[in-house]
Amino acid sequence: MSEYIEHDQTSVSAGLVEKKFFTFAGSPDEMPLESGAKLGPITISYETLGTLAPDKKNVILVAHALTGDAHMAGVYSTEDTKPGWWDIMIGPGKGIDTDKYFVICANILGSCMGSTGPSSINPKTGHPYGFDFPLVTIGDMVCAQKKLLDHLGIEKIFSVIGGSLGGMQVLEWMVRYPDKVVSAIPLATTTKHSALAIAFNEVARQAIIADPNWCGGNYYGGKKPDMGLAVARMIGHITYLSDESMRMKFGRKLQDKTDLSFDFSADFQVESYLRYQGAKFVERFDANSFLYITRAADYFDLEKKYGEGSPVKAFSGAKAKSLIVSFTSDWLYPTYQSKAMVKAMKKNGLDVSFCEIEAEWGHDAFLLPNKRLSNLIKGFLEGVRRENGY
Amino acid sequence: MSEYIEHDQTSVSAGLVEKKFFTFAGSPDEMPLESGAKLGPITISYETLGTLAPDKKNVILVAHALTGDAHMAGVYSTEDTKPGWWDIMIGPGKGIDTDKYFVICANILGSCMGSTGPSSINPKTGHPYGFDFPLVTIGDMVCAQKKLLDHLGIEKIFSVIGGSLGGMQVLEWMVRYPDKVVSAIPLATTTKHSALAIAFNEVARQAIIADPNWCGGNYYGGKKPDMGLAVARMIGHITYLSDESMRMKFGRKLQDKTDLSFDFSADFQVESYLRYQGAKFVERFDANSFLYITRAADYFDLEKKYGEGSPVKAFSGAKAKSLIVSFTSDWLYPTYQSKAMVKAMKKNGLDVSFCEIEAEWGHDAFLLPNKRLSNLIKGFLEGVRRENGY
Repeated sequence: MSEYIEHDQTSVSAGLVEKKFFTFAGSPDEMPLESGAKLGPITISYETLGTLAPDKKNVILVAHALTGDAHMAGVYSTEDTKPGWWDIMIGPGKGIDTDKYFVICANILGSCMGSTGPSSINPKTGHPYGFDFPLVTIGDMVCAQKKLLDHLGIEKIFSVIGGSLGGMQVLEWMVRYPDKVVSAIPLATTTKHSALAIAFNEVARQAIIADPNWCGGNYYGGKKPDMGLAVARMIGHITYLSDESMRMKFGRKLQDKTDLSFDFSADFQVESYLRYQGAKFVERFDANSFLYITRAADYFDLEKKYGEGSPVKAFSGAKAKSLIVSFTSDWLYPTYQSKAMVKAMKKNGLDVSFCEIEAEWGHDAFLLPNKRLSNLIKGFLEGVRRENGY
Repeated sequence: MSEYIEHDQTSVSAGLVEKKFFTFAGSPDEMPLESGAKLGPITISYETLGTLAPDKKNVILVAHALTGDAHMAGVYSTEDTKPGWWDIMIGPGKGIDTDKYFVICANILGSCMGSTGPSSINPKTGHPYGFDFPLVTIGDMVCAQKKLLDHLGIEKIFSVIGGSLGGMQVLEWMVRYPDKVVSAIPLATTTKHSALAIAFNEVARQAIIADPNWCGGNYYGGKKPDMGLAVARMIGHITYLSDESMRMKFGRKLQDKTDLSFDFSADFQVESYLRYQGAKFVERFDANSFLYITRAADYFDLEKKYGEGSPVKAFSGAKAKSLIVSFTSDWLYPTYQSKAMVKAMKKNGLDVSFCEIEAEWGHDAFLLPNKRLSNLIKGFLEGVRRENGY
């Protein structure tokens, strides 16, 4: 616990940041997707922090997880002071130091936080895509990020960093665009989604699909499948925590009562917490985006796509120096999965460092204040700078 | 794996068995419940195997888990040849030897498999109870089992055996009726439901409650909340397996196709498996019973109820010799929870043996063929027989 108590970087914000948008692949130049379908025009919402160096060599691309957005750090205004989702990590003097790096984060393709997704207007119909939106992959998301970087005139990324689904994007970048990536930090992630991870996603999807308001995905303008999406989010939340963290955080503590109710109200704090998380989530996220992005995660299999099933072969073209980090209590993407990718990278002679961080907070650990993680990332990036003579 | 392949006890069935029913607490003699409510009349469905010894000292009570029933072993007829849920363990020469013991299994109070539960007719209204059914606890379930044993003229149980929710009943028996229990075998269970276990149950319940067909629990005679119950069951199924068993059983194998569909059909075998399990479950189980029994599990806290929060104090009155078994890959009731109860029992000077079985099948392991488990149970029971001079 001490690591968390000592850590006080949360008090330093990355400062003001603005929402930016980039639109590309306008008709008839639709972007070909891995499914074979085409999509366009595509809008990508993104934000940047820090200053782009004249030689453009200080670019860090941060990839967000399942339900994240481009708002990685800082605040939008002195009135809207909710900091970005990784404000503890990104800012002046922090793990990802905005005094040194030009940091970019783009909302993923298929999401609903500014980038094109199922809730966007289909130019062919004038109505939201709904289930007419084509299935997108982690590869498609990375391809869209590449278009954004091309647009910004950035030829090389100093480091691409992300956890969970963000980590999958990091791995895809390493393999898909090996000459574009100097270094990479995949956190709490995997080279291929396991049966357990697919299972949780599938049940969450079924909860949404079971909601009669989902209406085959065409619910825009009507009642939303909030009940189903809330259950889906609750399932997700359990997988982000751990037995240990839930025991410490909730145990069997009761919520606002001294004894059991002997009915079905939220007696236990953990019940109340999950219900609250579910209810809060439906206010900000689109159910179809949840379906599409979880499907992209389940489809992610770097070994099959780039290595004909061989993890070693998958990384055979990669060049980036990398830092792989896993967390002891993460049972969604357990350490053995990180170790497997480290082994595959090493067999290709890649320069890879690996660290398993002792943390009781489960998969969510990569998002929580952790001095060790901040220091690891900071030190790794400094090392890459020195090695490359920046 | 070898343990499973070598094991061939499944070929020997316990033989023919018949459904029996016992009704008690008829109006106005309703049974008082732990909640303070009263319930009656109560019907308990039960089955027996083996022969009751003249001295009635050879009685084994088997307690079933969440969605089980009284049909523990054997078959109903030469036409209806589906064996009971623990046929691999119970039968002539098996772990629980019906040549030696008189084995009883009763469907738990609150269930829908013959015993009184929310789908039973409320004599006061002539309609199914629905959500007017009072909340029942593990203690109430055990109390109903005690009434059945009284009715059968059995004063002492040679051994009470059960896994998961059945294990909770075993622990409740040990503490509630210490003079009635010679020995006890709680398998894959816990003295108090953890936050993680409550969390999974709560999400499963929310999936049912979110189904508009649930109608506040009064759906009998109309459409049933099958979609919600199927999702609830899928959540349960994930918790019964393990990362390892799912990797071995499913991995990323596709279902009846050679490539990804790029739509939302069940591409992966694990998706197909879960959908099948969900669809099959709604045919045999009542959604309200699922709500009530999971709630009983969540309310289970032997330490609070009998020990003012102290596990040692909770077992201070217990007398039974016991065998505690946990399974390495069970993350629903992990080994540390079994070890805690062993420690508490030992501090009370109780005769307790503990075994953690190496098994990759997760929580479900206690229900699967496992020669080691059969031998352990058989040996333990033989030892108790010898010690007691039977």
